[in-house]
Amino acid sequence: SEARKTITATLFPGDGIGPEIATSVKEVFKAADVPIEWEEHYIDTKVDPRTGSFLTWESMESVRRNGIGLKGPMTTPIGKGHKSLNLTLRKELGLYANVRPCLSIPGYRTRYDGVDLVTIRENTEGEYSGLEHQVVSGVVESLKIITRQASKRVAEYAFHYAQQHGRKRVSAIHKANIMKKTDGLFLQCCREVAELYPDIVYEEVIIDNCCMMLVKNPALFDVLVMPNLYGDIISDLCAGLIGGLGLTPSGNIGENGLALMEAVHGTAPDIAGKNMANPTALLLSSVMMLQHLGLNEPAEQIHSSILKTIAEGKWRTGDLGGTATTTEYTKALIDNL
Amino acid sequence: SEARKTITATLFPGDGIGPEIATSVKEVFKAADVPIEWEEHYIDTKVDPRTGSFLTWESMESVRRNGIGLKGPMTTPIGKGHKSLNLTLRKELGLYANVRPCLSIPGYRTRYDGVDLVTIRENTEGEYSGLEHQVVSGVVESLKIITRQASKRVAEYAFHYAQQHGRKRVSAIHKANIMKKTDGLFLQCCREVAELYPDIVYEEVIIDNCCMMLVKNPALFDVLVMPNLYGDIISDLCAGLIGGLGLTPSGNIGENGLALMEAVHGTAPDIAGKNMANPTALLLSSVMMLQHLGLNEPAEQIHSSILKTIAEGKWRTGDLGGTATTTEYTKALIDNL
Ligand SMILES: CC(C)[C@H](C(=O)O)[C@@H](O)C(=O)O
Ligand SMILES: CC(C)[C@H](C(=O)O)[C@@H](O)C(=O)O
Repeated sequence: SEARKTITATLFPGDGIGPEIATSVKEVFKAADVPIEWEEHYIDTKVDPRTGSFLTWESMESVRRNGIGLKGPMTTPIGKGHKSLNLTLRKELGLYANVRPCLSIPGYRTRYDGVDLVTIRENTEGEYSGLEHQVVSGVVESLKIITRQASKRVAEYAFHYAQQHGRKRVSAIHKANIMKKTDGLFLQCCREVAELYPDIVYEEVIIDNCCMMLVKNPALFDVLVMPNLYGDIISDLCAGLIGGLGLTPSGNIGENGLALMEAVHGTAPDIAGKNMANPTALLLSSVMMLQHLGLNEPAEQIHSSILKTIAEGKWRTGDLGGTATTTEYTKALIDNL
Repeated sequence: SEARKTITATLFPGDGIGPEIATSVKEVFKAADVPIEWEEHYIDTKVDPRTGSFLTWESMESVRRNGIGLKGPMTTPIGKGHKSLNLTLRKELGLYANVRPCLSIPGYRTRYDGVDLVTIRENTEGEYSGLEHQVVSGVVESLKIITRQASKRVAEYAFHYAQQHGRKRVSAIHKANIMKKTDGLFLQCCREVAELYPDIVYEEVIIDNCCMMLVKNPALFDVLVMPNLYGDIISDLCAGLIGGLGLTPSGNIGENGLALMEAVHGTAPDIAGKNMANPTALLLSSVMMLQHLGLNEPAEQIHSSILKTIAEGKWRTGDLGGTATTTEYTKALIDNL
């Protein structure tokens, strides 16, 4: 038999329920015989002077070297001047696009059936510039920065993604009727890229109207691309349509194929260590990781097992109305592989 | 019998379907014997140099003098430098709070039952400052301005409104984990006001999480108060929960009781003049106007008639799946008064 190539991937189990749900992923990968070897990194308890955050320099280097990683939830310690760990990762690794597929889980009932859309969020600038100051007492301002370079890059990624995934429509979400210059530049970049994809329908939708249409009829949308804050808002709204962040994967994409997939839900400290957490969002993120690496067979196998296990209903975790433990659900997933 | 006091109110029928739906309101008011006399004003076809917009100086004076008005939809003519008519009204009249009650219409089915919440939006600053510029080629910035004065004022309005309307909870919506200074100041002002209302529960909810929770379970919310853009987004999302902007009233509140209620849907030029428009949003806005004036009896009477007529289902307009004309629906409303 051929020697199989093993891929090394960085794993940030994170904290709170992170280690438990990461264990679930590791076990499922092992059972499915996925050719991935993990390099595990944890958050430090003190700031690493080389990164200026609780993320160690070694862990960042690991992602850069491997070009691929998976991340559980992390709590940024509260206190003066601690930069958000999530934002630090995105910024330092140049993860310019945040991709969140939002797909109904047929076995899990919400008010919406058959949701199937993808939000692609500019992940580095906009309202997240961090530039703020007090003008005079009682008057503060924040700067929203939009650049041609970052807008073009995320627009290119969105259209490329749409094409690769056989999707038909890209909607750019904006408020350019009010922020004519910033959102206007963002739209201009989207239009330029849209020209290169004549087979993909391109449209522009104002964010308030977009949110109204999403709750009325999400089937109107396919791929949505937008500046940072709108992406933050709309991706959570979309997650809500299918049941919440516990069921939604997410990926952060950088240059040269660099990708860090992550579960975007919280660390749920109240249930941490109790074998109660739902690993689905991290598992679906690991499926995205496999797809990104071109490992479509195990990706499909694991994805089907997740849908099947949730549909069967017997081994659902508490957040989905069941009573299964994390390990019971994981075992059921493995049995259904 | 006592001489009845008549109140003069300004009416902007607006354009597109505006005049038809305004006629519906006038007829219903007449049939209900509401003691309102209308002063009608239309948008001019040329810019009034005294206002710098298509809104005439006389119409603005009318609202200021009467202290109360009702407004249909208006299209801002496209072209360089034409300021939005809606924004001009809000700004020039100092309409600092935008209030949108969002109440399920029992007879009209959506995915959500029993929605009952109110969004209160800061209406004058924030992301709507209009301050934008190009820093260097390919780099643009927009300024979000938050002031203590405007934040305090809208927070005071929100808590006052909650108290007056017997509501139990005020949620301040923000993204202060990212925009620490601007949204931080907004929250600080809300907290200061919350202290004065010990009987009202006060909470702070991050906007992305708020949107997710709204689509999962809108019953978690009661009164929501927030900066301008978040209000724009969330009020449309909420409208979507109950069926859209055609069923949602809105009010703009200024100093000394000044109020301009408005239907926030579009002018629907495609059906204008065809006796097909649904006047419900403008009618519900007129009900808000009556409540604001303390005319609770006719307000209640008209509101009940709207709910009854829609529930009966026989005289619904096309947007609600019916075939009734605007005049047929209006006649049914009058019969149900
Ligand atoms: C935790 C927070 C800083 C982050 C964001 O605002 O981007 C989160 O909401 C997300 O969407 O990943
Ligand atoms: C028409 C537009 C300028 C306006 C806004 O953004 O405020 C509208 O969306 C609204 O909510 O009234």
